[in-house]
Amino acid sequence: MRMMRVGERGRERPVVEVDGQHYDASGAVADYGLDFWADGPARLAEAARAGTLPATSVEGERVGAALPRGGALICIGMNYAAHAAESGSAPPERPIIFLKSPATLAGPDDEVTIPRGSTKTDWEVELGVVIGREATNLGPQDDALAHVAGYVLANDLSERTFQIEESGGQWSKGKCCRGFLPLGPWVATADEVDPTGLRLRSWVNGEPRQDSSTADMVFSVADLVRDLSRYMTLEPGDLILTGTPEGVALSGRFPYLAPGDVVELEIDGLGRQRQSYRSGE
Amino acid sequence: MRMMRVGERGRERPVVEVDGQHYDASGAVADYGLDFWADGPARLAEAARAGTLPATSVEGERVGAALPRGGALICIGMNYAAHAAESGSAPPERPIIFLKSPATLAGPDDEVTIPRGSTKTDWEVELGVVIGREATNLGPQDDALAHVAGYVLANDLSERTFQIEESGGQWSKGKCCRGFLPLGPWVATADEVDPTGLRLRSWVNGEPRQDSSTADMVFSVADLVRDLSRYMTLEPGDLILTGTPEGVALSGRFPYLAPGDVVELEIDGLGRQRQSYRSGE
Repeated sequence: MRMMRVGERGRERPVVEVDGQHYDASGAVADYGLDFWADGPARLAEAARAGTLPATSVEGERVGAALPRGGALICIGMNYAAHAAESGSAPPERPIIFLKSPATLAGPDDEVTIPRGSTKTDWEVELGVVIGREATNLGPQDDALAHVAGYVLANDLSERTFQIEESGGQWSKGKCCRGFLPLGPWVATADEVDPTGLRLRSWVNGEPRQDSSTADMVFSVADLVRDLSRYMTLEPGDLILTGTPEGVALSGRFPYLAPGDVVELEIDGLGRQRQSYRSGE
Repeated sequence: MRMMRVGERGRERPVVEVDGQHYDASGAVADYGLDFWADGPARLAEAARAGTLPATSVEGERVGAALPRGGALICIGMNYAAHAAESGSAPPERPIIFLKSPATLAGPDDEVTIPRGSTKTDWEVELGVVIGREATNLGPQDDALAHVAGYVLANDLSERTFQIEESGGQWSKGKCCRGFLPLGPWVATADEVDPTGLRLRSWVNGEPRQDSSTADMVFSVADLVRDLSRYMTLEPGDLILTGTPEGVALSGRFPYLAPGDVVELEIDGLGRQRQSYRSGE
């Protein structure tokens, strides 16, 4: 099943897609928040199949961020060896985490404003992991993936001057501009996705940039959930962005984003994003 | 006016205190979220004075986190020169930011669980700033404090092994354990607080630890709001923790927290916190 949020910003309604048909889920759930994830996905799938959710179309409608505000937005740094190398770093010995702020959440195709003064706005295609069941202090014997509800496509947009040169070393300063987390178009339930070998790609103005596989992650999704659960209690609806592969502008191989550019991103089974960039001056 | 959230965890109700009397605000506002801050405080103060809010007592009740989930929880690092020195750093040239996750939010007197495996759980008394009006790209001529709705007492709890030794340099890994942001007891409206000379103190088991003044900040509240507004859009209900002064365990002068310890914190006009610490093993 795929879960989407459709409609104008701040007024999105929950929609699910089952066997290629969309259903309006707004009569069954308010939103995909903290309270939803325990039994919500199973309940919605059953309702859709039982015919108790009204069929709907999302044709021509805006798609919102695949998750509402309220959960943690956790990012993993340097989780692909080739990206660590292009950024001038060695692969990390342990997962490196930083956070994004709630105002970064945006629809997958929403226009993105390049921040005022920015000359280094950069794309990062990433596999997002949505937590379904609370996880704390998981051990080697625990099934970490049993705590995952689903997967989603994300662009972890970054301003490199803010992140690196003006940050004092803490990356969040370049990760929190408004709209810097296009998320979606949908969360696919975990039963539909094998996170160990997904192709992830990005393009700028139709030219290829990133093209890698989640098989190249330094730390797998299971590793990440287990590691993070030692440092924080992962809660239903929390999002883990699992890091980006090589092929970003920070490498020096490509120009940074400019007004008028179009970025597209895709992950197998998780759909596609397409954003236009405009000037914030 | 003081704004509080009172009641059991997850079911707190909004209460305001005006001229020493508490009023139940739950008939007038759902909670102190994003939608509240534009005109909510003025509306509640007027309603309390007009007698349209029922008087109430909070005697013996649990006090919840002073803010609900949903806003950004932004922290400023090394914003007191003496604390930077005790941490082995020079004062920063620009504000350093990192974020805490929503599950850190806790009531000011809630018991705190020391994370499993932790040997370096540390206290940090801080002045919290609550944003009232959206701020983006403020310039030198803009009145940054006009974007501040109020002030609140916070404990930016930190696990130093997680933050420094196991983090790869990104501090959030030691800042996001569950309950690591006791916040409150109340948000005082900005008209009642001059943030430039507040005494802030902490104690462990009754012995003094921190005792400084916000006059010693490297970057003032106005500086911080102006600087952050270049890197992110500050939104109503966002919280900025403005950094901690010297006197934490990281200095080497005091032992880290152990089960059974009691931490107290206080800022002039913003009340007092008292937390017991228990083992997470």
